[in-house]
Amino acid sequence: MAQDDVFKKLVSHCKEYGFVFQSSEIYDGLSAVYDYGQMGVELKNNIKKYWWDSMVLLHENVVGIDSAIFMHPTIWKASGHVDAFNDPLIDNKDSKKRYRADVLIEDHLAKYDEKIGKEVQKAAKRFGDQFDEAMFRETNPRVQENLQKRDEIHARFAKALNDNNLEDLRQIILDCEIVCPISGTRNWTEVRQFNLMFSTEMGSTADGAMKVYLRPETAQGIFVNFLNVQKTGRMKIPFGIAQIGKAFRNEIVARQFIFRMREFEQMEMQFFVAPGEELQWFEHWKQFRMKWHQALGFGAEKYRFHDHDKLAHYANAATDVEFEMPFGFKEVEGIHSRTDFDLSQHEKYSGKKIQYFDPEQGKSYVPYVVETSIGVDRMFLSILAGSYHEEILERGEIRVLLKLPPTLAPVKLAILPLVKKDGLAEKAREIMDDLKFSFACQYDEKDSIGKRYRRQDAIGTPFCATIDHQTLEDNTVTIRYRDTMEQERVSIDSLQQTISEKTDMKNLLKQLAV
Amino acid sequence: MAQDDVFKKLVSHCKEYGFVFQSSEIYDGLSAVYDYGQMGVELKNNIKKYWWDSMVLLHENVVGIDSAIFMHPTIWKASGHVDAFNDPLIDNKDSKKRYRADVLIEDHLAKYDEKIGKEVQKAAKRFGDQFDEAMFRETNPRVQENLQKRDEIHARFAKALNDNNLEDLRQIILDCEIVCPISGTRNWTEVRQFNLMFSTEMGSTADGAMKVYLRPETAQGIFVNFLNVQKTGRMKIPFGIAQIGKAFRNEIVARQFIFRMREFEQMEMQFFVAPGEELQWFEHWKQFRMKWHQALGFGAEKYRFHDHDKLAHYANAATDVEFEMPFGFKEVEGIHSRTDFDLSQHEKYSGKKIQYFDPEQGKSYVPYVVETSIGVDRMFLSILAGSYHEEILERGEIRVLLKLPPTLAPVKLAILPLVKKDGLAEKAREIMDDLKFSFACQYDEKDSIGKRYRRQDAIGTPFCATIDHQTLEDNTVTIRYRDTMEQERVSIDSLQQTISEKTDMKNLLKQLAV
Repeated sequence: MAQDDVFKKLVSHCKEYGFVFQSSEIYDGLSAVYDYGQMGVELKNNIKKYWWDSMVLLHENVVGIDSAIFMHPTIWKASGHVDAFNDPLIDNKDSKKRYRADVLIEDHLAKYDEKIGKEVQKAAKRFGDQFDEAMFRETNPRVQENLQKRDEIHARFAKALNDNNLEDLRQIILDCEIVCPISGTRNWTEVRQFNLMFSTEMGSTADGAMKVYLRPETAQGIFVNFLNVQKTGRMKIPFGIAQIGKAFRNEIVARQFIFRMREFEQMEMQFFVAPGEELQWFEHWKQFRMKWHQALGFGAEKYRFHDHDKLAHYANAATDVEFEMPFGFKEVEGIHSRTDFDLSQHEKYSGKKIQYFDPEQGKSYVPYVVETSIGVDRMFLSILAGSYHEEILERGEIRVLLKLPPTLAPVKLAILPLVKKDGLAEKAREIMDDLKFSFACQYDEKDSIGKRYRRQDAIGTPFCATIDHQTLEDNTVTIRYRDTMEQERVSIDSLQQTISEKTDMKNLLKQLAV
Repeated sequence: MAQDDVFKKLVSHCKEYGFVFQSSEIYDGLSAVYDYGQMGVELKNNIKKYWWDSMVLLHENVVGIDSAIFMHPTIWKASGHVDAFNDPLIDNKDSKKRYRADVLIEDHLAKYDEKIGKEVQKAAKRFGDQFDEAMFRETNPRVQENLQKRDEIHARFAKALNDNNLEDLRQIILDCEIVCPISGTRNWTEVRQFNLMFSTEMGSTADGAMKVYLRPETAQGIFVNFLNVQKTGRMKIPFGIAQIGKAFRNEIVARQFIFRMREFEQMEMQFFVAPGEELQWFEHWKQFRMKWHQALGFGAEKYRFHDHDKLAHYANAATDVEFEMPFGFKEVEGIHSRTDFDLSQHEKYSGKKIQYFDPEQGKSYVPYVVETSIGVDRMFLSILAGSYHEEILERGEIRVLLKLPPTLAPVKLAILPLVKKDGLAEKAREIMDDLKFSFACQYDEKDSIGKRYRRQDAIGTPFCATIDHQTLEDNTVTIRYRDTMEQERVSIDSLQQTISEKTDMKNLLKQLAV
């Protein structure tokens, strides 16, 4: 199945089974905003719990906080977001449509790759088995010409971005003869900077309200609480502060379903260390975070690091954890060595001393910071992408199933009376009423047992317990396993323990223990 | 201890032990916004889990969602918030200060009660044991005069609010000769309506951005997803949709710590029923919710219902669950029978049919709704208020402790080696490394054991395990109970089960089973 099709199917599966709905759908939607449905919210909560427990519960020296979305506006001046968190925008005067100048150029660059790809495909067809792609690329004049043009533009583009030179960005668009996809014309305005933070007015005084921002990242809430947590929690360096919360970015080009949204959720941890020790901690967290991802069982080949060559001005090391989405390897988490940039900026802007007295070194310093930052929604998408499977069964029927890690599945156990009559429904409810305190159960008595299994497959329920006539005789049920479809007869008395053991967060966490 | 003092102590306790910090404190704070610290976030998460599990896990016919804060702006037109979610504001021209007109009048009314109270106190002192307060109130001319004035103003005030008559509100302020507390003058502007929703601009098109609101309540996210959840979740009426999430109100007069904030969190459930059955379900949820509160063990006398005499235009029954805060009985939860108002409004504004086909009745209808709505932050405050105790110990020492319900406590078990040496610290860490997968543990080896017990008391840790020299011999530890300070020797092997049983959410939930 083509990866494009997989992605489309995944999106419609999310809607059909209550994982993700478009926000405000009955009002024709709100662009780049999504709601989590009855299954989605459970999966999302389980992902958050897995992260929180692995960071806070397992690490004696990591504690959590929950800081507000609203913060003092000067914080975003200190962090650099007011001045530099911008996208370059350009309007087409004929269509009146607005675009991100950098995205127009990136799309244009991609066309060269497309052209080259077509040449390669054509030649491969012609030469058959004897085709040597590397050789062809190096010697074919059309390929070489396109490569050269692309590299020239790319170099100018990188320089313009680096210099933050808006006139050059515009000149590239003109020189490349990029046209508006709507009007087809090259009648472009100047390029302007557009800040990605949402702002609102707080309070209402006679002198005017205060302009505040919706936080574009949760990290600053941790930095400004560093002293509070360190002192009241009696924390000693090295230690970390973890947080899960919403952040907001007014993305102009929001794309790929829940991968890039205007309202999204982050799970961030800032780890405070002595200056000079940041790179060894960076390496430590890099390894731990990869372990966390791989413990989910989708296979190590689905993940890779993408180390940054070019670093942000405040960083001295950075890497992404990428997951193989249907649309390619994409960042789901970033790990950054942020130096003392943020704390020092807050010292400067707040006028408060933000230092740590290190009893071992016998001196005070501004701590260095290693950050792990993961998008909940991207993580959610990666888990669905890794779980989505279609199988063709014996009679040609297609089975769609989500091979969710049992710990993260929204429903752990489906409780299914084979038929409603003969007291089987009552027996099933009795089991449900006992087990529902321990984990999420779903009772279903409607339609044939085969149809019910399919529904549970589609929402990723790892186990189904079927109550049949034998149950009334010997107090056993059939356990049916999602991935293998194998069935096994077990005693009702053992159900609670068996399912708990296979779905308890504790067992996933134990894989991470050092 | 006076209740005012209790409240002040509670607020400073919250700061000192990492429960609640003022937002952006190093930038001198942001008014009416707070951050949850390392202890606060755990307590808050436990409260949310208690609510979620009791509503969603225990009720087969209640499912969750997590809808976005951003919604289509027409939703707030349909809900009535754009037109009617206002506060009446008035400015003093001399001080340039802005006030809520209704709060100025309420404060003025309170002065009559104060005057009456003083007369009563004075007389009580004079007459001693023979004082008959009811008789005195009825016959004393000064009391009677104040009562009459107060009732007159109150009647005018209620009418002005009811008619939404801003000129009358102003006239009352003038007639009562209410002065600005800052300038001391009566130089007032007109009264204007001020909408409490925060707004921001989304997107950036050449034609202009779209004005969107930060949701002032989570309920509308449930209403607009009613069809999505009902259909994809195959839900049958009666059923409920539950949600936990942030909401925002631009309060002009924010008061009482985290009781009324500009950014806050709600736990709401909308229960959809057949028309005509709403009042019996209202009664059902009213009882269940009270049971939920009382299961926390603070004593039934701390709670009361406050049934509404005057109902909102969309409601046909409403009650508050009130908790006795240090500043009086205050609403922590509202239970409302909202009729079909919201769904009908969304039908009208979206143009989509929002109906349910009832197979039993054989017809379609717009469901009626019973809502339970609770503020997470208020619930948090009520739990701290109910838990905060000061005890005077034998030698005159004051012990401050939080008698938190063990299930909700941020730390379940403190693990304390009596001394660091002799291998006790190593043994303690061994126990910690085993138990930390099961519940939140805190290791502490600093200071005397007495000081460490005090610190655990202050954050509400229900159990402390002390590792001493005997531990090394017979593998037992001392368990010390927070509330009684009693100690008991138990085997290390039994620790995991003992503490789990006493702190597991399951056992709290079982008290709610019907």
